[in-house]
Amino acid sequence: MSTIVFALPGNETLADNIRKQLGVEKGDAVVRHFPDDETFVRVDSDVKEKDVLLVCTLDHPDEKLLPLYFLSQTLKELGVRKITLIAPYLAYMRQDKRFNSGEAITSELFAKLVSGFVDRIVTIDPHLHRRSSLEEIYTVSATVLHAAPLISEWIRNNIPHALLVGPDIESEQWVSAVAKDARAPFVVLKKIRHGDKDVEVSIPQIVEFKHYTPVLVDDIISTARTMIETVGHLKMAGMRPPVCVGVHGIFAGDAFMELLRAGADRVVTTNSIIHASNRIEIAQVILKVLPNSTIT
Amino acid sequence: MSTIVFALPGNETLADNIRKQLGVEKGDAVVRHFPDDETFVRVDSDVKEKDVLLVCTLDHPDEKLLPLYFLSQTLKELGVRKITLIAPYLAYMRQDKRFNSGEAITSELFAKLVSGFVDRIVTIDPHLHRRSSLEEIYTVSATVLHAAPLISEWIRNNIPHALLVGPDIESEQWVSAVAKDARAPFVVLKKIRHGDKDVEVSIPQIVEFKHYTPVLVDDIISTARTMIETVGHLKMAGMRPPVCVGVHGIFAGDAFMELLRAGADRVVTTNSIIHASNRIEIAQVILKVLPNSTIT
Repeated sequence: MSTIVFALPGNETLADNIRKQLGVEKGDAVVRHFPDDETFVRVDSDVKEKDVLLVCTLDHPDEKLLPLYFLSQTLKELGVRKITLIAPYLAYMRQDKRFNSGEAITSELFAKLVSGFVDRIVTIDPHLHRRSSLEEIYTVSATVLHAAPLISEWIRNNIPHALLVGPDIESEQWVSAVAKDARAPFVVLKKIRHGDKDVEVSIPQIVEFKHYTPVLVDDIISTARTMIETVGHLKMAGMRPPVCVGVHGIFAGDAFMELLRAGADRVVTTNSIIHASNRIEIAQVILKVLPNSTIT
Repeated sequence: MSTIVFALPGNETLADNIRKQLGVEKGDAVVRHFPDDETFVRVDSDVKEKDVLLVCTLDHPDEKLLPLYFLSQTLKELGVRKITLIAPYLAYMRQDKRFNSGEAITSELFAKLVSGFVDRIVTIDPHLHRRSSLEEIYTVSATVLHAAPLISEWIRNNIPHALLVGPDIESEQWVSAVAKDARAPFVVLKKIRHGDKDVEVSIPQIVEFKHYTPVLVDDIISTARTMIETVGHLKMAGMRPPVCVGVHGIFAGDAFMELLRAGADRVVTTNSIIHASNRIEIAQVILKVLPNSTIT
């Protein structure tokens, strides 16, 4: 049983990291657009009877779906044994019920479609909200990995005197776990609502932590609204400019620059989505759950 | 049995034309993007037990596929009886075999996917090349309509002394049919190859037609390479600046402006794909094959 690694365009670096550490073959494929924007796909490697690792992170999913479908189905037609989709970022996790009548439950619909393309999915920190497991919506085997240990390690190695900050009480569990592994203290901001627009934010033990570097951690940085707000609260309280860490850096529109302008000292993400802020390599957490891997 | 007409964004005008002429209900739906580019869909009309006409032309198909899927599946979940997809332009008709080993046969794969979304497809002049019928690849009922009569009518009403010009011998059958209905003469250019790059183009009966307006007709104007070349040949032969007519105006990149700069007097298309060049309304040809229609 031999393994071969394919990358959809934009995923080459992560695919190469995984492939080299597994010591397996690189899959050659062409995925490009015709002038009319239709997609052309050609598999150039011999794939018969092989196990395929297909790397395709799923931010901006609409434009990626057909290339992923064409490549996965062509691999099947060419006789591969099994396709594992490595999608470090998994899209369409938010609309998981009809909040209002008539709404498309895109979370289920997207899962149903992708489950027809591949045999297994490996992803990192999907935005499971009302679901306890990905397999409630994906009918194929789904492996969920966590970036928290890598983030803790990065904080430990890069931020002296870090203070983990949770933006609200819901974040306490996650923030306390990252803080523990990072061997750093943590605080959770408390919102006191005086009226609709009059919200006071209190930072507990503020005096004690004046000389620490606040570190904000979230799973997805999309519009960055929550982080920008929290950066503002810390600034008002006279704290040092914080470091903002995200697992998945979507950065909708100008969100990255806005977060820096709001007062973040730096913004750091994992390479689950390619972005200039990538500082935390996630290949090693993926490798643990792949066949052939010697990393456990 | 009542009918309701929905339009994917960009298809509102054609949907309204069809709906008004059928005298049926307008379907209200929201299809928009979140800041992270994921699609949101909501059906606001009561659709239970109704027959849906879903208008979505399929140029730039990759970005349109998920919105179409989400809307069609949600309509099904909400209890519609049948969905007819009206896609005046149908994508992925070219790659209909493996020209080279390993190539994705996107024509079959796309058809398989879309056949899972809807119950019937209505389209205009799909680029059937090696296929004799759409139903060789679409597993749902597929109705193919032709724009030629509308083009002939437009030429008859708008171009005095028109001369239909076919760019090569393969176009003779199509060009002669359009010419007959347009009550205009036609010629077919003959290529005489003297070497790899030395191709002479002869225009039969050139003297006889000096005072006619040449009209070039093609099914798809994408990069417009063939038309630009033909416009050049007619110019060299001292003919009047030609009128270029396309059923489907894709106009990849700057093709529309390039065709005008090459010497086309005007460029005219049907509204199968929305473009500034649309002059030929195709609603009436679609109406003929829809239920409830009084137009036959």
